[in-house]
Amino acid sequence: MGNCLVAQSGGPTAVINASLAGVIRANQLNPLYEHVYGGLYGIEGVLDDKLYDLTNLSGHEIDLLKQTPSSALGTCRYKLKRGNDTDFERLVSVMNKRDIEVMFYIGGNDSMDTVDALSEWAREHNTPQRFIGIPKTVDNDLVNVDHCPGFPSAAKIACQITHATYLDYAAYTRPEVFVLETMGRDAGWLAASCCVSGDVDLLVLPEIDFDQDKFLTEVKKKFDEKGECYIVVSEGAHYADGTYVSAGPSAHDGFAHAVLGGAGAVIKQMIIDAGIVPRGIVQDLSRAARSSNFAQSLVDVTEAYELGMSAHMRSGNPEFTAHVVGVKRTTDATGAYSAQFFAGPAQEFANVVKHFPTEWILPDYQGITEEAIAYYKPLITGEPKLIYKDGLPETIIPFNKR
Amino acid sequence: MGNCLVAQSGGPTAVINASLAGVIRANQLNPLYEHVYGGLYGIEGVLDDKLYDLTNLSGHEIDLLKQTPSSALGTCRYKLKRGNDTDFERLVSVMNKRDIEVMFYIGGNDSMDTVDALSEWAREHNTPQRFIGIPKTVDNDLVNVDHCPGFPSAAKIACQITHATYLDYAAYTRPEVFVLETMGRDAGWLAASCCVSGDVDLLVLPEIDFDQDKFLTEVKKKFDEKGECYIVVSEGAHYADGTYVSAGPSAHDGFAHAVLGGAGAVIKQMIIDAGIVPRGIVQDLSRAARSSNFAQSLVDVTEAYELGMSAHMRSGNPEFTAHVVGVKRTTDATGAYSAQFFAGPAQEFANVVKHFPTEWILPDYQGITEEAIAYYKPLITGEPKLIYKDGLPETIIPFNKR
Repeated sequence: MGNCLVAQSGGPTAVINASLAGVIRANQLNPLYEHVYGGLYGIEGVLDDKLYDLTNLSGHEIDLLKQTPSSALGTCRYKLKRGNDTDFERLVSVMNKRDIEVMFYIGGNDSMDTVDALSEWAREHNTPQRFIGIPKTVDNDLVNVDHCPGFPSAAKIACQITHATYLDYAAYTRPEVFVLETMGRDAGWLAASCCVSGDVDLLVLPEIDFDQDKFLTEVKKKFDEKGECYIVVSEGAHYADGTYVSAGPSAHDGFAHAVLGGAGAVIKQMIIDAGIVPRGIVQDLSRAARSSNFAQSLVDVTEAYELGMSAHMRSGNPEFTAHVVGVKRTTDATGAYSAQFFAGPAQEFANVVKHFPTEWILPDYQGITEEAIAYYKPLITGEPKLIYKDGLPETIIPFNKR
Repeated sequence: MGNCLVAQSGGPTAVINASLAGVIRANQLNPLYEHVYGGLYGIEGVLDDKLYDLTNLSGHEIDLLKQTPSSALGTCRYKLKRGNDTDFERLVSVMNKRDIEVMFYIGGNDSMDTVDALSEWAREHNTPQRFIGIPKTVDNDLVNVDHCPGFPSAAKIACQITHATYLDYAAYTRPEVFVLETMGRDAGWLAASCCVSGDVDLLVLPEIDFDQDKFLTEVKKKFDEKGECYIVVSEGAHYADGTYVSAGPSAHDGFAHAVLGGAGAVIKQMIIDAGIVPRGIVQDLSRAARSSNFAQSLVDVTEAYELGMSAHMRSGNPEFTAHVVGVKRTTDATGAYSAQFFAGPAQEFANVVKHFPTEWILPDYQGITEEAIAYYKPLITGEPKLIYKDGLPETIIPFNKR
């Protein structure tokens, strides 16, 4: 009986370890592999033969792993390039040495491309190793799937912080603007999710070129109408010429030295400079939005865990390689949300960004449609029963720190 | 039978509404007053006779109020100045018109001074109105009490975000620094609380003058020893000459134009400029730390609620005025933390800042002592069973928005 390997790549999420836990637990329920090795620091550590034996984690450790945020194996941003035979040979040699038949790679767009590239190389070089992808990303920008594990929990904490900070903002009478900034790279999924809270006045997404004059007109209108304006901006928002809003108006005007910081800070300053209100508050969700183990979505944890199990179970078929497992949306007999698990060729998942649908965006920065709200709501539903210790959700010591 | 008035002032917290709920519920259990009026926007709204009748909130509404963050009545930063007879007369006239005998004021240092000033004015002018203070502040800088309601919940979310973002940071191999910034004004209580998570390498507090060279030496040491450095800085950190760290090194050197933003961003840039690591991440907790209804401490909610009840119950004594209710720390027969409720003269609470004890601070920015950790731990213990709706903790519509 051979072994398997599982590794994590790219930005961490609140549930990426739940997928890891799913692979480990599935192998305890049906030991297809003698050992489940964890590769430390993604592909980088695997190339260095840095592995950790995860086979016999206890049930309690698996429960803790499911509620431990970030990548418990460590992660990397290293991308295996097609044509880089040295890396590919090195990887296969590590796998051979450890008798590893299958590698599960938990990651985003780039990692799904790595799964495809490795599978292709193995086929071309007649080596038996197989490669299977398990998606994750808080950006939710992967094609083919309804959504990516990790995104629902990020959306849930983003909504919770939006609502809490809106109430904080709404308690005051003084004229000031509130700007919340979210991650999401070039896709507006996470920023748009904040609208589910019902508190967002204006929304700036990467999917719509930023028009400063038009935007400031809308800000002015909100203050005239209701005396307040709660704005959400995605870090990837940009002008029509591609300049990021975060680079500041001066950069947009060709003065590249004036990099002011995040998009939120720039938007706030723009509104003050326009004389609309004299002050503002910026809340940059930054890393807190993607590693929020204290605000996991139960739907998300469950699906991430089950995708790990699904990948392991499907790998029992010796022909199963170069594939990615994912979730499609369906409804049960009552019309309620239900997840449908599937697998598809890795090449169909790789290197394409799924943007937030423009038909779900209301004109003039006014937020998102009811259809978009209906997309989000089932994803952020439910809260896992967390195990607490000394007032904090208990976590496992990361394997890369042992 | 007369009426009472309750208002909220200063920065919101995650449990300031629990104290409000305590006053309302106590009056339902024992109706000392015919009406419990809420003053909108603190003393400002009261002066404008903007009141909301809270007497008959349902049990469900009271449950929701306890888990609604921020100030549900709205707040203000307006300070009633001693000697300002116009404001004092106006307030008493509003109270007379509505037959209000007692005013409960939920707030921080300044508000406890307001309670004292109003009581003094009433005594001097032979008017029968009474004024009672209920403390709150996430800064935890009030004297006489063991801690302030609102602070434990702020500390709990600060610890949770510290631990989650530390795990996120620790997943990477690339050399970069992580800097978390907290609120707290001139007191380091909230920043220091992050050390309870066990993840903080270096801590910068307002209680110790910032020595840039010494600090950078410690940062360098951490990277040499363990390849990472997780730093927490309080917004109020300052140099020996009083210049805030947030004003930037240039301001410290007399060039007051170079205001760079928050202390966290300045610290990060300082480390990069010193050539220790080429990049860094800043997480500014900002408002999310003080309105975190999704991470309330059960001890905090309970105490805030009971302080509201205690204030109401003690007001049954017609001599009870110019006082503040508070919590002292005691232990039960098993040695476990227990809250002891007391009341003291408002003048003893006003206008003094309680700093984080210097004897609890380890030298060279190395964090806090075990004694300090033992102070924090019981405060952040326990999680209330929240009522969720559509994936978010359900909240009440703020009274100032109805």
